Amino acid sequence: MGGVSKRGSNPNLRQRKSLGGSKETAAAAPGIVPREESTKKWRNWWQRTVFTFVMIGGFFTVIALGPLSIMLMVLCLQVLIYREVISLSSVPKKERDLPWSRAMNAYFLGCLEYYLYGQNAHRALKRHPWLEAHLQPVFAHHTFISFSMYLVGFVWFVSTLRKGYYRFQMGQFAWTHMALALVVMQSQFMIENIFEGIFWFFLPIALVIVNDIFAYVFGFFFGRHQLIELSPKKTWEGYIGGGLTTMVFGFVFTALLSDWKFVVCPPPNLHMTVFSDVQCDVNPVFVPRDYRLPPAVTALLSAVLHRTITTVTIRPVQFHSLAISAFASLIAPFGGFFASGVKRAFNIKDFGNSIPGHGGVTDRFDCQFIMAAFSHTYYSSFIRVSTVTVGALFSSFLALGADKQLELYRNIQEYLETTGSLAAGTVPAAPAPAS
Amino acid sequence: MGGVSKRGSNPNLRQRKSLGGSKETAAAAPGIVPREESTKKWRNWWQRTVFTFVMIGGFFTVIALGPLSIMLMVLCLQVLIYREVISLSSVPKKERDLPWSRAMNAYFLGCLEYYLYGQNAHRALKRHPWLEAHLQPVFAHHTFISFSMYLVGFVWFVSTLRKGYYRFQMGQFAWTHMALALVVMQSQFMIENIFEGIFWFFLPIALVIVNDIFAYVFGFFFGRHQLIELSPKKTWEGYIGGGLTTMVFGFVFTALLSDWKFVVCPPPNLHMTVFSDVQCDVNPVFVPRDYRLPPAVTALLSAVLHRTITTVTIRPVQFHSLAISAFASLIAPFGGFFASGVKRAFNIKDFGNSIPGHGGVTDRFDCQFIMAAFSHTYYSSFIRVSTVTVGALFSSFLALGADKQLELYRNIQEYLETTGSLAAGTVPAAPAPAS
Repeated sequence: MGGVSKRGSNPNLRQRKSLGGSKETAAAAPGIVPREESTKKWRNWWQRTVFTFVMIGGFFTVIALGPLSIMLMVLCLQVLIYREVISLSSVPKKERDLPWSRAMNAYFLGCLEYYLYGQNAHRALKRHPWLEAHLQPVFAHHTFISFSMYLVGFVWFVSTLRKGYYRFQMGQFAWTHMALALVVMQSQFMIENIFEGIFWFFLPIALVIVNDIFAYVFGFFFGRHQLIELSPKKTWEGYIGGGLTTMVFGFVFTALLSDWKFVVCPPPNLHMTVFSDVQCDVNPVFVPRDYRLPPAVTALLSAVLHRTITTVTIRPVQFHSLAISAFASLIAPFGGFFASGVKRAFNIKDFGNSIPGHGGVTDRFDCQFIMAAFSHTYYSSFIRVSTVTVGALFSSFLALGADKQLELYRNIQEYLETTGSLAAGTVPAAPAPAS
Repeated sequence: MGGVSKRGSNPNLRQRKSLGGSKETAAAAPGIVPREESTKKWRNWWQRTVFTFVMIGGFFTVIALGPLSIMLMVLCLQVLIYREVISLSSVPKKERDLPWSRAMNAYFLGCLEYYLYGQNAHRALKRHPWLEAHLQPVFAHHTFISFSMYLVGFVWFVSTLRKGYYRFQMGQFAWTHMALALVVMQSQFMIENIFEGIFWFFLPIALVIVNDIFAYVFGFFFGRHQLIELSPKKTWEGYIGGGLTTMVFGFVFTALLSDWKFVVCPPPNLHMTVFSDVQCDVNPVFVPRDYRLPPAVTALLSAVLHRTITTVTIRPVQFHSLAISAFASLIAPFGGFFASGVKRAFNIKDFGNSIPGHGGVTDRFDCQFIMAAFSHTYYSSFIRVSTVTVGALFSSFLALGADKQLELYRNIQEYLETTGSLAAGTVPAAPAPAS
């Protein structure tokens, strides 16, 4: 999901870009670009731009096809990125001599994906009673089964420990766990976000992309001061300019999306698409409200516009968008800096070459993991409305023993009588006993 | 929590024990122990035995003092073990030159402990309405606050990345995450287990200790065949003999504990001690049941004992204990092998020297983490009874809107009428309207 160019790139700073020992050579001839290199650069720029649009187009198509296709896309990305990150841990290539190393890494990914997607599968199967009844034991012990699978991997790993490679193998094991935690578990929040409404999946990703693009634009035109040693092409001007633009974009874009039920409703099912007729009671944060302006602002506006404006109509979610935008432009880039640090640690330029002109998949997604985790936590903490429903409570009621059921019934009855909800006539009297 | 000696140690194999390059030298003179070394060995043995009893005594005292003291003990252990494990990642000691490295590791531990213990604190504060009301915003956003704290650490880490140390720093970061996941998060399950009843905390730990001791005893007397290259002193004989003993112990010990309410009841509060009068409806797994023996077994017993025994009285929890014992003796030792692998990777003999004769705290607890995680998962999957209570359901009922409240009331009323629970006379008629 790329920006047009590397975030905040600045042609004035570009010459400094180097890896490892080549820095001094590059710095020795600033500003002078050989013709051959220039042609190559332009070709790369074109390739990059074309593939940016290909990716953005693909992204919109996947979203239009609904939750199932988005989940499949996220799964593919998790596998690709995990592969790219894990492959780093086998530098130097000693691991080729070690048996099972690749299979084990794949196995650990499989365990975690089984654990994470299993929960969603259960949610989806609730609509298929026959399947649910037969798979019930599997779902009831889902955590136990997943943990047992992990234990198998753990015992397997310990059994393959080989003299002379202990330190290397332990390092790989730690790296695998970090990749699982930072890449797979964090990106799983994207899936969680889909179930709250595609909005919560789409907005964070869009904000990071917009921030990428505008940090580049501001850096290109105004960039003078280097932001961080790790990424020499990023500038303070790009960081701040991109940030402000992203916040304005987030505020406006959110208002545009808020009336589109396909986007703001929690998906009623996994096979919903953009053509489905989606209906729901939208979360109240999407409903416009009038906010009274402070008198000073009213006075100012009246002086400038010669109109008296005392209130503005804003959707509360727009204020939340400002907060999420601020995160996307101020903190999420540190995910990218971290990825740069990893690349420098392993002395590589890109994580891979699967996207022409962009490098590896990880290079394009480095800021998206932390963004997904943040937006999910933010949503859960500040936006989610209580999900208690009559149906769920009634199910829990059924699980009580007979005497507890009566106790709850009497508590509720007493409460409703006290509050006056149970006025005469609204509730039919209990029927006469059968005996 | 120590065994009397290293698990499954065998004096016949002991000479082989060596680290790094000294293996050949030791193997060259099997069975010959210089006098000085022998004295040292005996002193070590005494020290080890004394401190084993000191630890077991301390362990029982802490348990007798109840949940709060157990939680404090676990917290202390987490901090000590985390320190021991983290200190490995700064071998070689380059890190001394890097600023903030120690502070950052402490900070990440602090974030995770805040997250984990914060949840328990909330549970405890439910009994103090004034405090709960004032801290409500903190608890309502607990996950968000904890995640923000982690993000601060993440940005801090990225900001301290220093040229020339990238690979080293990234390795440390990965190691920190693995220590947090494998040590702190796994041992947190011990705390979770306490809240289900001290039994679920005590039994797994006791099983590992018993297995340690008997694997040593069987290895000492019968050990001939080395179990795993990683730990040369462990033998197949110790592994199997210890395992069978542990299963018998688990089966019997569980029956002995099952009538002691201090142990089997979920603690009513954190300051309960062994002297408190604890009452509860015990989980049905602790209640003895009669199991009919297969006819063949009855016939066999009648032939041998000249008595007709058709049923045996067993508590279901004893069968669960067998499963947990099997894990404690077959899989949990791999936690110890893993710890051996780590020690060999870093070419150290022990994780520390805080327990005289035993090495570091980690050396004594290496099998307990995975055991705690397993027993918690096992409990949640196979033993926990639904925790739905009338009080919790009523709270959820109060969170509904007025019309939903009435809807639920009518659903419940209709159900109770259908099942006949609401027979005439048992339910008072709704009072006459006030108007």
